[in-house]
Amino acid sequence: MKREIYGEDHEAFRASVKEFLDRSVVPHVEQHAADKALPREFWTAAGAQGFLGLEIPDQYGGSRDLAEGDYRFNAVLLEELSKVNAALGSCVGIHADIVAPYLVELTTEEQRARWLPGVASGEILTAIGMTEPSGGSDLAALRSSAVRDGDDWVVNGSKTFITNGYSADLVVTAVRTSPEKKAKGITLFAVPTDAEGFSRGRKLDKVGQDESDTAELFLDDVRLTDDDIVGELDLGFVHMMQNLPQERLGCAISNLAHARQILGETLVYAQERAAFGAAIGTFQHNKFLLAELFTQVDVTQAYVDACVVAHAKQELTPVDAAKAKWWTSQVQNDILDHCVQLHGGYGYMNEYRVARAWRDARVSKIWAGSNEIMKELIGRDLGL
Amino acid sequence: MKREIYGEDHEAFRASVKEFLDRSVVPHVEQHAADKALPREFWTAAGAQGFLGLEIPDQYGGSRDLAEGDYRFNAVLLEELSKVNAALGSCVGIHADIVAPYLVELTTEEQRARWLPGVASGEILTAIGMTEPSGGSDLAALRSSAVRDGDDWVVNGSKTFITNGYSADLVVTAVRTSPEKKAKGITLFAVPTDAEGFSRGRKLDKVGQDESDTAELFLDDVRLTDDDIVGELDLGFVHMMQNLPQERLGCAISNLAHARQILGETLVYAQERAAFGAAIGTFQHNKFLLAELFTQVDVTQAYVDACVVAHAKQELTPVDAAKAKWWTSQVQNDILDHCVQLHGGYGYMNEYRVARAWRDARVSKIWAGSNEIMKELIGRDLGL
Amino acid sequence: MKREIYGEDHEAFRASVKEFLDRSVVPHVEQHAADKALPREFWTAAGAQGFLGLEIPDQYGGSRDLAEGDYRFNAVLLEELSKVNAALGSCVGIHADIVAPYLVELTTEEQRARWLPGVASGEILTAIGMTEPSGGSDLAALRSSAVRDGDDWVVNGSKTFITNGYSADLVVTAVRTSPEKKAKGITLFAVPTDAEGFSRGRKLDKVGQDESDTAELFLDDVRLTDDDIVGELDLGFVHMMQNLPQERLGCAISNLAHARQILGETLVYAQERAAFGAAIGTFQHNKFLLAELFTQVDVTQAYVDACVVAHAKQELTPVDAAKAKWWTSQVQNDILDHCVQLHGGYGYMNEYRVARAWRDARVSKIWAGSNEIMKELIGRDLGL
Amino acid sequence: MKREIYGEDHEAFRASVKEFLDRSVVPHVEQHAADKALPREFWTAAGAQGFLGLEIPDQYGGSRDLAEGDYRFNAVLLEELSKVNAALGSCVGIHADIVAPYLVELTTEEQRARWLPGVASGEILTAIGMTEPSGGSDLAALRSSAVRDGDDWVVNGSKTFITNGYSADLVVTAVRTSPEKKAKGITLFAVPTDAEGFSRGRKLDKVGQDESDTAELFLDDVRLTDDDIVGELDLGFVHMMQNLPQERLGCAISNLAHARQILGETLVYAQERAAFGAAIGTFQHNKFLLAELFTQVDVTQAYVDACVVAHAKQELTPVDAAKAKWWTSQVQNDILDHCVQLHGGYGYMNEYRVARAWRDARVSKIWAGSNEIMKELIGRDLGL
Repeated sequence: MKREIYGEDHEAFRASVKEFLDRSVVPHVEQHAADKALPREFWTAAGAQGFLGLEIPDQYGGSRDLAEGDYRFNAVLLEELSKVNAALGSCVGIHADIVAPYLVELTTEEQRARWLPGVASGEILTAIGMTEPSGGSDLAALRSSAVRDGDDWVVNGSKTFITNGYSADLVVTAVRTSPEKKAKGITLFAVPTDAEGFSRGRKLDKVGQDESDTAELFLDDVRLTDDDIVGELDLGFVHMMQNLPQERLGCAISNLAHARQILGETLVYAQERAAFGAAIGTFQHNKFLLAELFTQVDVTQAYVDACVVAHAKQELTPVDAAKAKWWTSQVQNDILDHCVQLHGGYGYMNEYRVARAWRDARVSKIWAGSNEIMKELIGRDLGL
Repeated sequence: MKREIYGEDHEAFRASVKEFLDRSVVPHVEQHAADKALPREFWTAAGAQGFLGLEIPDQYGGSRDLAEGDYRFNAVLLEELSKVNAALGSCVGIHADIVAPYLVELTTEEQRARWLPGVASGEILTAIGMTEPSGGSDLAALRSSAVRDGDDWVVNGSKTFITNGYSADLVVTAVRTSPEKKAKGITLFAVPTDAEGFSRGRKLDKVGQDESDTAELFLDDVRLTDDDIVGELDLGFVHMMQNLPQERLGCAISNLAHARQILGETLVYAQERAAFGAAIGTFQHNKFLLAELFTQVDVTQAYVDACVVAHAKQELTPVDAAKAKWWTSQVQNDILDHCVQLHGGYGYMNEYRVARAWRDARVSKIWAGSNEIMKELIGRDLGL
Repeated sequence: MKREIYGEDHEAFRASVKEFLDRSVVPHVEQHAADKALPREFWTAAGAQGFLGLEIPDQYGGSRDLAEGDYRFNAVLLEELSKVNAALGSCVGIHADIVAPYLVELTTEEQRARWLPGVASGEILTAIGMTEPSGGSDLAALRSSAVRDGDDWVVNGSKTFITNGYSADLVVTAVRTSPEKKAKGITLFAVPTDAEGFSRGRKLDKVGQDESDTAELFLDDVRLTDDDIVGELDLGFVHMMQNLPQERLGCAISNLAHARQILGETLVYAQERAAFGAAIGTFQHNKFLLAELFTQVDVTQAYVDACVVAHAKQELTPVDAAKAKWWTSQVQNDILDHCVQLHGGYGYMNEYRVARAWRDARVSKIWAGSNEIMKELIGRDLGL
Repeated sequence: MKREIYGEDHEAFRASVKEFLDRSVVPHVEQHAADKALPREFWTAAGAQGFLGLEIPDQYGGSRDLAEGDYRFNAVLLEELSKVNAALGSCVGIHADIVAPYLVELTTEEQRARWLPGVASGEILTAIGMTEPSGGSDLAALRSSAVRDGDDWVVNGSKTFITNGYSADLVVTAVRTSPEKKAKGITLFAVPTDAEGFSRGRKLDKVGQDESDTAELFLDDVRLTDDDIVGELDLGFVHMMQNLPQERLGCAISNLAHARQILGETLVYAQERAAFGAAIGTFQHNKFLLAELFTQVDVTQAYVDACVVAHAKQELTPVDAAKAKWWTSQVQNDILDHCVQLHGGYGYMNEYRVARAWRDARVSKIWAGSNEIMKELIGRDLGL
């Protein structure tokens, strides 16, 4: 099914992203995986191209005005990144698509001037600190806290599974400021990672997404001030909720683009690889399977595209984003599992892209609100 | 997900269809099921409303010009019919959405004048005769034949699983005219059912779709002439291929509208029916299940809607229609199976709409090209 | 996989059952379906063969002693019945495998003498009345009640989905005797259906199992005495729980035998039916599918056989029976759905056994404790 | 479901295996994973315990006579190994359960004396070389060849995905000796890895089973003699076929034991891990899911146990083994995927056993004859 949502501008932008990735990223992915991180040069090079500033007004070094705030440019960027590998989509997505909006929409002029130019240029790398070791998807159970001490806030706690966490310069961190108010007593702080009392564990050894750095963060009497608060005191939960549709849509776009790319590569493999005297893709079982997978991709793309269009009009509901998030993660994992199988033994070798993609994808059913949380939200919306 | 493809005109048309169905059809569905057929009054009443003529130019009594040939009106009609029951969508779909285009596009002026006014008014009820007892989906294996005898054609053979077959006045019938040319030797004849030598078996006793009449047809030395040929001699296979996208899209629209309607009714049931002290829909298993099913519906609707828009622009490919057809039939059957389960024992009682819907849906994976045939087509399109 | 649980005696018994069914039942199944019931002659003929008395001591006309109380004879009987059709297995199962144990194990000598000879001979046809219109699987919510009035009990209420309900002479009926004690205030009464105040609705119009009669029962001031109580006052729930493993195992045996039989018939069809120039079973998609289905049958049979052996040693746990019940019902339905598809259009025609079997099977996921209830029980057993 | 196939002897043997593993293996698994291989000390220690000689007659240092050739001891060993991790089961399985029978059953007295003592003691580590880079599961397409040169054979070719390949001392290798005879022109050679012309690539970087060494092997004018032939010239294919049931049953035993172990650990996690104020296993979605997974395990175990019993009686058919192999690999992968999800983010961290198990399991659907090959075999057995 021909996609209809992008115009010439979007495709020109896609070409520029792709050219950048082919030139500056693709040759280095092995190194990224070995380092378990993207290097700072990647970030500044991407920043120099304007790819980190789609959410940031031009006056702060961003490119939002140029893109007319059209989310379809973000979608194109996420698609092209995820086609290279899933970690690239995740890391850039967190920084440019998820954290940046917080810093643009919930901040004072002083804060914007302090942070945004570096975020846009890639000199201030960001992360978001929600999940805690004890809590998983249950934000209301947050234990990290900030306590008033004179004009300061003294922050203690720990966060885990933080993408970009090992390299980040600034972490938007959710902590409890009003212990008695449960979900309504949470505040977001932008924590500079050179603050005294801030430390990180080692890079987490993940099943996949080798190229991303993921870390535990520790806050031990970190002293912050009101100037470090992002948004309103005690309204952190509300702020996070408001940004969730974009986060989940971003996941959906990436999930599908990632699976779609590997499926396309697998089709080529199935056309070329011979066994028992014929291309393996021509065996009816594989042929029907590939027919099913390509159908799944087309059907799912139609929904994701409809979500992108809705979000570009600021009309995407949290529930529709939740549907897109869990569904695409399921589709992505199903497709990639079959792609591995179609590669036979090679599908189990890490030097094959399909093997890595399979490992990469598994987390998409878990993070950013697990699929179970998504279904809970959708169920509630059904009045259940 | 809010649907975006319909405008005010379409919704006004939907309201008129719905009003007609509520008034003239819904009160009689039990009778239709008992009769295993829709009565002729239904057809003429629907014709009087203009609902049978969306494919027929106004000069022949149709309403195509009024609707500007916009397929979205057809889609609205099929949706509303299928929401009442699946058989209604099938029977009207065959007549108005599938057969009518053959009679409009492949005919001479004389033929159009002879047939179209009756088709539009419901006085000439039509069917299409492709499937044979020995052949299933394998059109190339067609055994019915027409042999030249002077200026006449002498037609022999049999057809089965013919929707509207028991009541039809005119059956567009595929027969072999050049035995040696396989798929390229097939011709379409419009066979009047009062022709000498034409007969029908009893109404077939089907698993579902009780309200439709389905029959075996027998042609025993039926004499026809060149004036009864629809389209070109020996090009019947090509003609059928050209009309398949619309047929399959029609199936897809109906499949999804049918499942969506029953799912909506099931949600209400699950909100209201109590067990173990709570509405059954609030049990987490059911809640997540319903969340999944509603997601499936929304995702699938996005694809079907994209197909409708593409078809309205004459851009729908046969492969995209094949994807829509098999996918929706699978979704429909999966959803309805869960809807039965959510109804407990009542879901097994024919007086419940969900029970009938479950039986009705099963054929959608089989007819109009089985899902296996669809996957074969899609696989070929992938170069396999 | 060769089955190992049966010896020569069991196979000799199987041969006698099969001979009886081929001679006395198979020729009449169309009539049974048209009547929506098995005729009394069936019951008395089966009784005369000793097939209804496997749970009944020989002194009351049964054949339990002869069979040494070996449940494997019951299993053989259920298998052979279910191979003819599912309703036969259900109806006989209810009478001989489910109700009979209540009447043997929980009764006084006087009651046994009163009931058992007729049950064994088929002259007293039995049913069990648990489910109520408002309650489904929630036995604790039972509303039917028996209230003391002098030496009598006055029983009021209604039951639904009662297999054999329309024809039964005696219905073991669960009613509330202590309103305040919830599940612990339920008593079983054996209600003679000629009692004043007892009436029945029409035969329910079910999706499948056409050959069984299923009915709503109404109790309107039916007067019973202590002599009609089966087991202990207020211990009905416990009594029912104790008999559930056998009931659920019986379902499992029947579910699998039914599916296995139709799958075997479908294999023959797939070997013989040609399309596109080859037997349809030889197309790789179908070949792999049939390989999967036969694997599923063998794997499941191993588990059911292990349950049969355990039950024959009185060691089957309720949880293992629950596993057998839900798993087999799922397998049965999955297999039969594929068998329909393999039959193409014929699979949708009621004259084909596969079409009926598909309709018949659907209830097995719902009745005798829905699959959701089974999973609840298993989950509790896991300490959850 | 209580398992019934093991007696006291088997359980005593299990205890000794378990004691050995807890003491000598479990403390070192991190090192094994880092080394991508089991150390030689492991092999000799296992040999010293008699665990490598269950297939080898006592006169050659084995323990087959002691175990009375009862395959159930092999099954116990594989279960306990796989409970530690999947690679352990694979590596020992290849050596002791798969290669040893070739060397016992197809050899001359001289060969047995040369090889078996070292195989039993762990001093001669073995591997089997079937798969080639170009061939996958298609043994008939084998390209490696042995050509007569005087009394020698000159062997050339390459093998890939060879478990134990990097460490092995002796590789039973399938090569083509009669080019024109396809599958009937293959011979097995036992290739000493210190032979001139034999070399290996690096240890392959696999998705999982980190603890096993897997390598490509290269044969470049390796000179062997008739004394290195295992079995009959040109009958290698037949020899391999004869050993396949045991190989596939071994896979099945390991697959299930592996999944079962991790599922048990996951249940404990789900009982203990709290979210939203309750143990996560008590949420109905998870509760039902765990109920389903434990059912799957019990059902599958019944089948595998039946296969073990049949094999212990030399009655296991290749087709029943094929069913066991593909089914268990599917069950294993499905279960482990859900186990990951139940662990949330921790399930994606390699330090968690569930994460590794998930990666480990993926290959079981591919190796030792992919699931597609298994279905092909089963389908043929159905006459398709």
